[in-house]
Amino acid sequence: MPALRFEVQAVCPETGARAGLLHTPHGTVETPVFMPVGTQATVKGLTSRHLAEDLDAKIILGNTYHLFLRPGHESVGRMGGLHRFMNWNRAILTDSGGFQAFSLSDLTKITDEGVLFRSHLNGDPHMFTPESTVDVQRSLGSDIMMVLDECLAYPAEHHAARRSMERTIRWAGKAFDHWRPLDDGRQALFPIVQGSMYPDLRAECARRLIELDAPGYAVGGLSVGEPRPVSMEMTEVSVMELPSHRPRYVMGVGTPEELPEYVARGVDMMDCVMPSRNARNGCLFTSSGKLIIKHARYKEDQEPPDAKCACYTCRTHTRAYLRHLFQAGEMLFCTLATIHNLARYLDIMRQIRQSIFLGAFPTHLKAMRSQTVEEP
Amino acid sequence: MPALRFEVQAVCPETGARAGLLHTPHGTVETPVFMPVGTQATVKGLTSRHLAEDLDAKIILGNTYHLFLRPGHESVGRMGGLHRFMNWNRAILTDSGGFQAFSLSDLTKITDEGVLFRSHLNGDPHMFTPESTVDVQRSLGSDIMMVLDECLAYPAEHHAARRSMERTIRWAGKAFDHWRPLDDGRQALFPIVQGSMYPDLRAECARRLIELDAPGYAVGGLSVGEPRPVSMEMTEVSVMELPSHRPRYVMGVGTPEELPEYVARGVDMMDCVMPSRNARNGCLFTSSGKLIIKHARYKEDQEPPDAKCACYTCRTHTRAYLRHLFQAGEMLFCTLATIHNLARYLDIMRQIRQSIFLGAFPTHLKAMRSQTVEEP
Repeated sequence: MPALRFEVQAVCPETGARAGLLHTPHGTVETPVFMPVGTQATVKGLTSRHLAEDLDAKIILGNTYHLFLRPGHESVGRMGGLHRFMNWNRAILTDSGGFQAFSLSDLTKITDEGVLFRSHLNGDPHMFTPESTVDVQRSLGSDIMMVLDECLAYPAEHHAARRSMERTIRWAGKAFDHWRPLDDGRQALFPIVQGSMYPDLRAECARRLIELDAPGYAVGGLSVGEPRPVSMEMTEVSVMELPSHRPRYVMGVGTPEELPEYVARGVDMMDCVMPSRNARNGCLFTSSGKLIIKHARYKEDQEPPDAKCACYTCRTHTRAYLRHLFQAGEMLFCTLATIHNLARYLDIMRQIRQSIFLGAFPTHLKAMRSQTVEEP
Repeated sequence: MPALRFEVQAVCPETGARAGLLHTPHGTVETPVFMPVGTQATVKGLTSRHLAEDLDAKIILGNTYHLFLRPGHESVGRMGGLHRFMNWNRAILTDSGGFQAFSLSDLTKITDEGVLFRSHLNGDPHMFTPESTVDVQRSLGSDIMMVLDECLAYPAEHHAARRSMERTIRWAGKAFDHWRPLDDGRQALFPIVQGSMYPDLRAECARRLIELDAPGYAVGGLSVGEPRPVSMEMTEVSVMELPSHRPRYVMGVGTPEELPEYVARGVDMMDCVMPSRNARNGCLFTSSGKLIIKHARYKEDQEPPDAKCACYTCRTHTRAYLRHLFQAGEMLFCTLATIHNLARYLDIMRQIRQSIFLGAFPTHLKAMRSQTVEEP
């Protein structure tokens, strides 16, 4: 019995957008889904009750790089895994740690064997290999694990992008070879389509990865500075090659406006630090655009952040109170703003899902495209 | 109809400890009570739901100095007062702002007229007078207001302490003269007993203040560095002079061990930043003493912070997880630790109250005195 079962419930005949159910060992996730990012075994500022009861998030993301360094995957493993460690009984997806090893640490060397890097915390040298990152994620016990992939800077030459893609494919093969004999039906492993911004490489990478017959596929290396039409094109050419009965996950995207665009290209899963990070910086996403809370015009504004939002923050507090908390540097601001921004993202996904069932996704997409993104 | 009505329900015949009900315009408060400190219109890190539902706090404290500077009392007033501003429908007590003007700002001058100080935020000069601090607290709309008092450094000579006490009494008179014609039955005003560490001054100050026939009385100027037996003696001599049918509030105390000591001396109300501030610094108060969460011994400790505690944090998380959050600098630690420490304080008060009703307070006090305060 595989760890993951994906059920497509409805498909938009015009765009290919899908609504489905992702059955995991820790509950069923309705797709398309946005996954809040819980970097260090916590979605910054939120209790697990905020996440489960207020937001009704069904799946969150954990960062392997951070958990590997602190408190350490072996420690988490001894304590019964990440779910138990953070007392989160719903689904968890972990990345491979590769992206942070590339972006946060002093990267010392990339070879065919893996990634040699120095901890950003204390400079200690560590190595991630395709096999070791699977082992780290086994200790964490996430429902969905990701293979180690090479994260290429943008822009890249075609020959460099091909070389990197070939390595990513080899690493995916090694990860699956390592994982298959260990598979106990409690975790699933996804390979990652790379290929920089070259359609031919993206398509080839996807075609070669499906030979692994994985339970799901990710598209990586997007949102690295390329123009948005390019991200969309890369998503399209990658997804086109992927099997329709498997979930498709685009990593690290996107803005509220981009969410329906990815879904329109057949994407089922997304994650991004944007809603939580922007919240902490005082930027609230509302149904009528971005709200920059520090602006003086909100000083005595008695409206909730978003009158159309039913989240705890919008039900409970005014813009004036949130602005005061932000100006005073109070951490409660981060909590309340994060609750709202994540609620906004999850609401967008729920509305998209509903419109797919109702056969109204193209209309919904059009409406979202024409929506103002001005400050309310 | 006065804003405040105090009902003594039970008195310990041996110590004089009282259990009562304080009826305020925003609900009834069971006494003896510990009031969490919500400096800038927020108890740091807690949503109002944490405060009301998890902790069931019935009254919190707001700091007039901070709210006067930011967002400004007039602004809060225009928005319907502090209760509405922070969406807290239970009772609020505000201090006069004097203590922070003395301790946080560049104090420029104290005269009989009042306190001239510079904002710690931007250096702007401001004046607090006995009348103006009442007006500021009227704008805030707190249920219980405090008069401006002079906060003397410790130690002080007898003649300086007398001079300061005389000024405090004059200021209290001015505050009440200003308040009486404005009293609309929605707020109460408490005078404050001062007199440094001199029993004769404390007793005289209390005797002279009761001429105001105030709805309640505070004892200020304690916990300023004096030995604990001295604080207790000053409390005793002050309380002895105060009318038994009025609530008695000792400001800015104390440690968990001190709470029953103050109650044993006839005190009904207390407040202190200790539970919330220590929480943020990684110190948890438990039924078996202080727990310093960063200690390595807790790295994989699967126990809750306090197995005897029923708070959200103890029901939900392990010491190991809390230690991880603390070490990683995650703000969720502050939220969870503050919930626990305040729950501990409120539990101590509830147990004390119950023991008074059961006629078991002397036994309970003895048991609390003999309790270990070692780290668990």
